[in-house]
Amino acid sequence: MINHKFKNFFIDVDGVMTKVFFAYSKFGKKQKFFSADDSEAVKILSKHINIHFVTADFRGYKISRRRIEKDMGQKLSLVPAQSRLEWLSKFDVPENIIYMGDSFLDIDIMKAIGYGVTVNDASTMLKPYCGYITESKGGERAVSEACFHVLEKFFNFSL
Amino acid sequence: MINHKFKNFFIDVDGVMTKVFFAYSKFGKKQKFFSADDSEAVKILSKHINIHFVTADFRGYKISRRRIEKDMGQKLSLVPAQSRLEWLSKFDVPENIIYMGDSFLDIDIMKAIGYGVTVNDASTMLKPYCGYITESKGGERAVSEACFHVLEKFFNFSL
Amino acid sequence: MINHKFKNFFIDVDGVMTKVFFAYSKFGKKQKFFSADDSEAVKILSKHINIHFVTADFRGYKISRRRIEKDMGQKLSLVPAQSRLEWLSKFDVPENIIYMGDSFLDIDIMKAIGYGVTVNDASTMLKPYCGYITESKGGERAVSEACFHVLEKFFNFSL
Amino acid sequence: MINHKFKNFFIDVDGVMTKVFFAYSKFGKKQKFFSADDSEAVKILSKHINIHFVTADFRGYKISRRRIEKDMGQKLSLVPAQSRLEWLSKFDVPENIIYMGDSFLDIDIMKAIGYGVTVNDASTMLKPYCGYITESKGGERAVSEACFHVLEKFFNFSL
Repeated sequence: MINHKFKNFFIDVDGVMTKVFFAYSKFGKKQKFFSADDSEAVKILSKHINIHFVTADFRGYKISRRRIEKDMGQKLSLVPAQSRLEWLSKFDVPENIIYMGDSFLDIDIMKAIGYGVTVNDASTMLKPYCGYITESKGGERAVSEACFHVLEKFFNFSL
Repeated sequence: MINHKFKNFFIDVDGVMTKVFFAYSKFGKKQKFFSADDSEAVKILSKHINIHFVTADFRGYKISRRRIEKDMGQKLSLVPAQSRLEWLSKFDVPENIIYMGDSFLDIDIMKAIGYGVTVNDASTMLKPYCGYITESKGGERAVSEACFHVLEKFFNFSL
Repeated sequence: MINHKFKNFFIDVDGVMTKVFFAYSKFGKKQKFFSADDSEAVKILSKHINIHFVTADFRGYKISRRRIEKDMGQKLSLVPAQSRLEWLSKFDVPENIIYMGDSFLDIDIMKAIGYGVTVNDASTMLKPYCGYITESKGGERAVSEACFHVLEKFFNFSL
Repeated sequence: MINHKFKNFFIDVDGVMTKVFFAYSKFGKKQKFFSADDSEAVKILSKHINIHFVTADFRGYKISRRRIEKDMGQKLSLVPAQSRLEWLSKFDVPENIIYMGDSFLDIDIMKAIGYGVTVNDASTMLKPYCGYITESKGGERAVSEACFHVLEKFFNFSL
């Protein structure tokens, strides 16, 4: 293990675990688009660091819970963008946190935390504040790519 | 504030707020694909300029209303392409209007209004008539990108 | 009018009017993804040339009919790839036909007909046999682009 | 026929026959996105080599069976990633097997088998172990492209 300070990795759901777009019918938000490989990579990384999923999307919360909690067996928290940095700080000092997000709403978080990761199709305003940008888009193996990057960079692990 | 003449920003729904494609089942138009970040950016811009959403899609009107009106809390008007320029002119003289569209049917509007914005995957015939083309495709943060562009260019605002 | 010999334009549905992929649930083929602008461009071109839609997809036939016949008001024929060239020949001699397809199964048709159009994400094996390749992918304004190309090239019409 | 040793071609379903992403509703995995041309190309290649489809996705198994078994008329086996190499070895010695996959979980298989094929949007970790990478993404004619590549390379067949 190269670096001991990172004990928590927070992963935003929408636009990171999913495609940036979502499906609406006349009854509301109906579908989100999750990716192959992400669930398997998270399982491998979770032996080395605590992984937390977080979403601000209360309208699509049931869809995200179904995927993240029931089918992937991971923790998912519903936390609005405004209170997210405060919420993160309950787990550890921000400098010891790795965070993966995609939105301009994540700028303040990226400035505060220790290591920021984003997706290739993130908000262009967010990218300057991130230490690593995946080659993949959200919902197209981006989380899998981020997990192996974190494993290599901080845990000296590679496949 | 740099420029005072723009008091109204009109945003077309299909291909701008949504992916250029939509889902059909044997029962008709069923789903449209909306993007992360667009709703949040519209909320910020709407403190500076009146935002109006407009659609010509009567078959998908219930889907668009569900997203734009009920879930985003914005105004949405159903106006055919042919009468749209006349309709716009009721709000202000066209030169004082900002318009965001994606279709070849928007060419006459773009010629008439004050500042035109389009998406990266717009009709190639429309692009020459637009002052700004987002790097993003419709339904992939294009409206969010357009909102921050308008905020910077005309309201001296940046995140 | 520049060229009088083309009286019929045949447009394949899947991969041309739609995205190359389609949605399956456990109950079978459920959704296809159609594009903005294509319907409107077809309406304009249809004043100059007979437009026929053709599909080989019997499993998704009800979805295609719903879009092409009921909602767009155009003719749609279900014709297998193997008998398609023979079927086309009933309308006119092949040299007088414009055809738009996307599959390797269309190679023999493209060799026989007068002017072939395909989409940017067509089978790479088909492309060498086509006179025009749209910049757009199927289901992303490709038919709209093709319609205006045909209007300009053969009918001296531009917006 | 150029090369006689390949009698079996195994094709992974998710990310190869389908887009890398899949649709979730609040009730779970609902839709996968299959491509035009793949079914037709598989039919042609299957006259020359035994084709087997394999998936590790038990949650989406009913969707995959519906497409691969019922509608395409091909064999589909549900085999977890961990036991897949052992399972493959029951059909022939690995060196005589052609395999098409997309995931980092396929690395050990690619190392063992005779000829590996992957898709343009595969896991970047898998690509170095594959003899051929399709220009197409999974769910966008990648299997069709792979089938014609195999036909040309090993069976001296081209359209």
